[in-house]
Order: sequence, then structure tokens, then C-alpha cells
Amino acid sequence: MPEHTRPARGMRDFLPDDVRKRDYVIGIVRTVYQRYGFEPLETPALENIETLTGKYGEEGNKLIFKVLRRGEHEASGETDLALRYDLTVPLARVVAEHRGRLPRFFKRYQIQPVWRADRPARGRFREFYQCDVDAIGSRSMVVEAELCAAVSDVLHALGFESFFILLNHRGLLRGMLETFGVPDRLHDQVLIAIDKRDKIGRAGVATELEARGIPAEPARRVLDALVPEREGPGTFDLDHFHERVFAKAREHVGDHAGGLAAIAELEQIQRLSRMTSAHRHLVVDLTLARGLSYYTGAIMEIVYEDLPGSLGGGGRYDGLIGIFLGEAIPACGFSLGLERILVVMTERGMFPADVDTAPADVLVTLFEGEPIEDALGLAAQLRSVPARVEVYPEPDRLGKQFKYASSRGIRLVTVVGSDERQAGTVTVKDMDTGAQTGVPRGAIAGWLGARLKAAAAGPRVAGREV
Amino acid sequence: MPEHTRPARGMRDFLPDDVRKRDYVIGIVRTVYQRYGFEPLETPALENIETLTGKYGEEGNKLIFKVLRRGEHEASGETDLALRYDLTVPLARVVAEHRGRLPRFFKRYQIQPVWRADRPARGRFREFYQCDVDAIGSRSMVVEAELCAAVSDVLHALGFESFFILLNHRGLLRGMLETFGVPDRLHDQVLIAIDKRDKIGRAGVATELEARGIPAEPARRVLDALVPEREGPGTFDLDHFHERVFAKAREHVGDHAGGLAAIAELEQIQRLSRMTSAHRHLVVDLTLARGLSYYTGAIMEIVYEDLPGSLGGGGRYDGLIGIFLGEAIPACGFSLGLERILVVMTERGMFPADVDTAPADVLVTLFEGEPIEDALGLAAQLRSVPARVEVYPEPDRLGKQFKYASSRGIRLVTVVGSDERQAGTVTVKDMDTGAQTGVPRGAIAGWLGARLKAAAAGPRVAGREV
Repeated sequence: MPEHTRPARGMRDFLPDDVRKRDYVIGIVRTVYQRYGFEPLETPALENIETLTGKYGEEGNKLIFKVLRRGEHEASGETDLALRYDLTVPLARVVAEHRGRLPRFFKRYQIQPVWRADRPARGRFREFYQCDVDAIGSRSMVVEAELCAAVSDVLHALGFESFFILLNHRGLLRGMLETFGVPDRLHDQVLIAIDKRDKIGRAGVATELEARGIPAEPARRVLDALVPEREGPGTFDLDHFHERVFAKAREHVGDHAGGLAAIAELEQIQRLSRMTSAHRHLVVDLTLARGLSYYTGAIMEIVYEDLPGSLGGGGRYDGLIGIFLGEAIPACGFSLGLERILVVMTERGMFPADVDTAPADVLVTLFEGEPIEDALGLAAQLRSVPARVEVYPEPDRLGKQFKYASSRGIRLVTVVGSDERQAGTVTVKDMDTGAQTGVPRGAIAGWLGARLKAAAAGPRVAGREV
Repeated sequence: MPEHTRPARGMRDFLPDDVRKRDYVIGIVRTVYQRYGFEPLETPALENIETLTGKYGEEGNKLIFKVLRRGEHEASGETDLALRYDLTVPLARVVAEHRGRLPRFFKRYQIQPVWRADRPARGRFREFYQCDVDAIGSRSMVVEAELCAAVSDVLHALGFESFFILLNHRGLLRGMLETFGVPDRLHDQVLIAIDKRDKIGRAGVATELEARGIPAEPARRVLDALVPEREGPGTFDLDHFHERVFAKAREHVGDHAGGLAAIAELEQIQRLSRMTSAHRHLVVDLTLARGLSYYTGAIMEIVYEDLPGSLGGGGRYDGLIGIFLGEAIPACGFSLGLERILVVMTERGMFPADVDTAPADVLVTLFEGEPIEDALGLAAQLRSVPARVEVYPEPDRLGKQFKYASSRGIRLVTVVGSDERQAGTVTVKDMDTGAQTGVPRGAIAGWLGARLKAAAAGPRVAGREV
């Protein structure tokens, strides 16, 4: 009986068309991030288990895939390694480990899979890619502005237009909560509760606040200020909107110094972004909380039209690297969710036509009785054009080989039968038009080169320019 | 006290220069494989544990990283998932699982990491990349010839010249062993022993053969035929060499039908390769055994000058997919070892100059007191050229920012002080020559575009053409 052939639960095989789509998106992400001076980093899939534990909160801890110790220890059931859960903690470890080899301002992007033992659901997988971009070493709001611009450029290049980068600040949230009278030790509890507002609604958050022990009066003020009946940012005047938002924020924090400093930083990010691609997408949202506990400053989240959840998010985390290095180093970053971007782009047909491309430009056919080594020589010649050339692996009826080319979307097919051999030509059939052209064998490379160049310039492969 | 910051044992962090080198090689591998009509495939890092166990022999089994079950099962110490050990078994699973969606001749490449709990050593890691290329669905020797040509093209494009693709055939080995009188059930034992010849020498193999219970007379004949004093293929006439090798092979197998059929296949691969890039690299080596047990036909291994071990290897495995599908499907493939290729290329300086490239083309400087948003606007304009532009994140002394550009290898630095602002210009300093140029702000994008184009055409970034 054959073995089970399914991929592991919550994980996926990516067939060629899937990989081509993923590579297209990843290629654009890379190109744009490089344009901002970010450099590539890669870290191992496995980390020592201590590196990950205690970094993602109690819930996160449970979702870490743990690897059994090997050899004589295997029977003990002990674990010593764990699969990467995000790309931020490995980055913090790398900065601490390689400090001397990295520039003072280390700007890196990292596009790798992470693993979480979440319950699989539509659009939620146990292996998925993150596209992270982080800037280490500066407290300047230039960092936030550059990150928002880079992410906006990525989304524009992919064809997204009507997205918003929601912007808030942990210092402002802290200032508001203190002003509202929420005890310090309960701040995290409040942030966790209001972060769920999209899932559980306003009433749900009210219940959670009570359950998490927030006193009634502070809870009421939290709800009023941070979980209003949501009015999405529509088509209105952003500058005017922000005047009102900042006025309200000032009202909420009173003379709380940290809160006022946070407002100043948010205003600065706004101002610095004025001439960047992020400007028309930035929306300060006092109700944005973000789940992760390591954020210390600005926090960001990308929302897109009516898509539930977000396309990505990020923020400033000036404390995380210090856990590894013993010395505080400021850091700020953004993470794009590749899987959600792919889902939206697939559903809305946002891929250019040439991404779902045929596996080859030309199929070289084989005949029984003809010297096959000549066909392989022809293939070598065509590949040097350069062209993508598939050789039908076995001599077979010509009709069958034509049919194969059609089914694979390969447009050109070469035929060298005994007639062609005698005449010193190659017959090339265009499967789209049915036209057959006899090309002298010596001129075939030049002919194909010109032909592919013309096709690339035409609408058939009109990729989006980045 | 800060936490440990080392990557897990036997695993590596890849800093930007490392990633750029890896991406360069991977880019060439992809491009060449696509030129042969191979399509990309990716599979999950984790497989159900049953998918992997029993596929890699007893030794391999021990080296598989196993993942603990989660939740309530965690305490049991049970495992249900395992990390990918190679790319061939996942391919076989994928072909069985997605049969209906794949073409009759499925040609795929796959470039992903695999994990093996081997004892780490120089050049041996627990996480490493494999670059696999396989053709599914045909028994034709055209497949072997195309694979050898593709691999040769990859190595040529990377700058390797003096490599050999050693070629042998499991059917020929079987034929010889039967003719020599080795009992069938001991064939695998003999192959494992002679596969170690480079590590343990001729005497070592003799000892192993005895320890593995091979009778004296067959063992003597095995040693004489398959573990001769090694004479490496030097600069000699390959055709003449092969005449002798095939004559010797015929002598060894006598009238053993399977052995003779295998010789015919090897001769066919030779003949089919005559007009491909593989021809001058193919060397039939009757002593090549290959460790893995799933090979059924031709086997290949790439050796390079005095490098111990190989750059890659492969072969035909017509039985493996059947384990998953319940129906035999022929298959043949090649695996290149990315890590060894990188080691050789780094040691011998085989990377083109532009691979170890600077992180940006331009550094935009910032001044205290000047409107930083204008600098970010300038950066946006330069990025649209397109150019790779880093913004110094904090206003600072100009000298310090110049020094930073130098240390990062960023050649051009823009300065917009109050003089430039008044004059409506941007000063661009070339850190290599020290020259400073004043460019009107409105013309800066055009100026930079022309400048980068000229640099790209020059020797500074003369990449190898593929």
C-alpha cells in the first residue's frame, strides 16, 4: 500500500505556478528594500530553545515547534532546539553576536519562513513567510519615516493603492492609560484587550477589561478613548483629520510628559513623510495597540480596504536587543505578511501576465530514427541565445509532441526531420498561430533571439516596472 | 546578564556579504535550470515523520531532526514531524500527491535548506542548502544527457572549468557483482564499502568487505575491478579512454544481460552528450558506487581538481516514487552542494567584483537645522531613478557622515546645506575621487541616472554573463 502523500498539517507544497508568484512578490520586496539601503540577512531555521522562550508571551510560547534532543538523549523527551517563530528575535540575537562586524546603523531585510503551531484555518498556516525590514542603531524618527516610505513603495510596486498605515505610539498609549488611572501593572492587560477589538467587538473588550481586573472608571475611559465606534478613515482631508486626532490625544494625556513626547514624535513622523510615498497613506489611530509586548515607541499596522486583519505591521522596540547584548540599542522595523499579500493579489488578479509564464520558450522534438544527439546540439545552441528550451525526452509521434507543447503553454516547437536535415534547415512551428517557418540551421540562434526580443517588447510579457 | 547569542550548533548566520554571494550562485543555478525547461518547486521544511523514516538507511535515520508533539502530548516525548533531510523524498511525495496537476514529464528544480544532525566539522553543517534538479516520467537517456549538460552549464557559468562528471550505472555494478559471485543480499554491503574508498583507502575497503561477510574470492575480484589503485582522469584522450573502460566493463560482466544493457545505456549517454557542454567533462568510472540505496540506473558524481569529496551527484531512481504512488514512475536527478561550491568560489576568488557590492549607490546626508523632510524628498527622487539610496538617520557633523559613507563603501554622498538650498542645487561628493559636483536640484535624477549607467558599463561592475 502506498504511503501517505499529504504535506504536514497546516503546511503547503508550492507547485511551479505558486513559486513563480511568490518569487515575483519577493523579488519586488527585495528590490525596493535594497533601494532604501537595506541589506539581506538570513538566520538558521533552528535556534537554541532558550533564545526563543520567554520572548513571545505565554500564548506564543505554546506555539513554538520544539525539536527533540538527538542520540542517547532522544528517549528523555528533552528538547534543545526550536524552529524560528519570527524574524525579530533572531535579528536581535544576530546584532548582539556580530556587533563588531555590523555598521553603526544596521539596516537589514530578511525574507524567510517562520513556524507556528497555530490551529490551521483559511489563510492561516503553520509555515509562512515573513518579509521583515528593520533599522538598528538610531532613535531618530527618520527611521520610522523611511520604513513607512519603503513599505509604501513595496505596496505600490505590487499594485496596492488604497491601503492605510495606521500609526500610534506606545508612549502615548501609556500616557493615556496613566492619565485614565489604569494601574501600571495592568497596562499590558489593557493593550491585549483592545488589540482584540476587531475580533470581539466593543462589548467584548468591555468584558475583557473587567475580567482582566481593570477598575470600572479607568475601564470606561479606556473604552471611550480607545474603542470608539469605529469610523474608518474614508476619503477625507487627512491634515484636518490629524489636527483633530492630535487635539484629542492632548486632551487624553493632559500634562503627562511621556504622552506629550510621544505626540511630538508622531507629528514628526507625519512631517518627515510629507515628501515620501507614505504620506497619503499615514493615518494616526489612537486606538491601535498591537499585540507584542516588546514595542516601546511608534507602532504601525497596514490595513487594506475591507480585508480583515492586516497586511503587515511593526514598530519601535528599543529594549529587545539589550536582552541579548546587555546594552540598549534602539531598533525599529516592519514586517509584511507575504501570504496575505499573495492571497489578495491572487483573488484580485494583480499579477502581471508574464508571472504565470510557460516553463519554456521552445520545445525541441525528437524523432525515432533521427540522431538524437543532433537535437540536443540544437537545444544547446538555442539555450545560448539565451532561450528557455525543453527537449521532449523520448522519440514519439509528432502530433503528440505538438499537443504536449500546447498543454504546457510552450509557444514554439522545432522540427528537424529527414527533409529538414537534407535541406539544412529547422522548421519552427508557432503553436499560437499555427504558422510554420523554415529557418536555415546556421541562422536559427539569430532568428530566435530576434523573435524573443520582439515578444518581450510586446504586450505578452508586459511586467510592471519597479 | 545578557543571553547567549550564538546560533545553534552547526548552523550559521549569513550576514549581508554572505547572502549576496549565496544569492549570486542561486541566481545562476536558477537561470540555467530554467533554460533547460525546469520549473521551481518548494516543499515545507517539516514533513510528517513517516514520510522520512526508512528512506535514508539506518545511518540517515539517526540524523533526522524530530519535532515534539504539541499541547497535551508534549509531555509524552512523542514526535510527529521531522525536518526535511533531502529534497528527493519530498519530491517523490509531491509527485504522488499532485499527480493530476503535473505534466507528464515533470522537470523541477528546488533550492532549499535541509537539516541533518551530523557532527559539525569544517565545511559540514547541520543546516545546508541543496540545489536539486530532477526529471520525472521518462526512462530515456535523453534525461541523463540533459541533466549532465545543465549541471555543466551551471558550473561553467560560475567559473568552474576543470571538473569531471564521473558516470557509472547501478545495473553495471549489479552485473559485475553477480558475475564475481557476490550473493545478491550482500550487494548493498559491497556498494557501501566501496563508496568509502576515498576515505578509508583500498586496504580499508578490503577489511570492510571481510567484516561485511563477503566471501574471499568475490571480495578479491571486487577489489581488483572496483577499487584499483586510483589513476585520476588526467589530460588524455577521452574517447580512447572510454573504449578501454567499456572493454573492461564487458570483460567484467561477461554475458550478464543486465550488465550489458547498462553498458549500452552508458554508451548512449556518452553519445547523446557529444554536442552538449557536458561532453568534455563526462568520465565513465566503473568504481563509482554512490551511497544512497534508491538508485536503479545511471549514477553521477562531480569531482573538481584536488577538492576532497564532490560538488554534487545524482542518478536514476525509478523505484522511489512508487513507494508513495503505488505505481512505478521513472525519475532521474542531480543535486548540487551549494555550500561546497561557495567554499571553493570564496577560496579561489571566483566571484565577480560587483557581488560584494556596497549597500547603496548614494548616501543622503542630514544637517541640524535644515528641514529633514526635504532630504527625504531628495532620497525619494533619487530612488525613482532607480538608485539605491541610504539616508543617514540623524543630523550629524558632515565629516562623520562622509566617513560613514566611506566605511560602508557608498561612493556618492549628497549635501544640501543652506548654500545649496539658496542656489537650488545639490552637491554630490564622489568618495573615490574626492571630486564635488554641484547639480541643479531639478536635474539631479537625470544626472544620477547617467552616472550610474556609465558606472554599470565600466569594469567596476563587470558581472559574468550568463
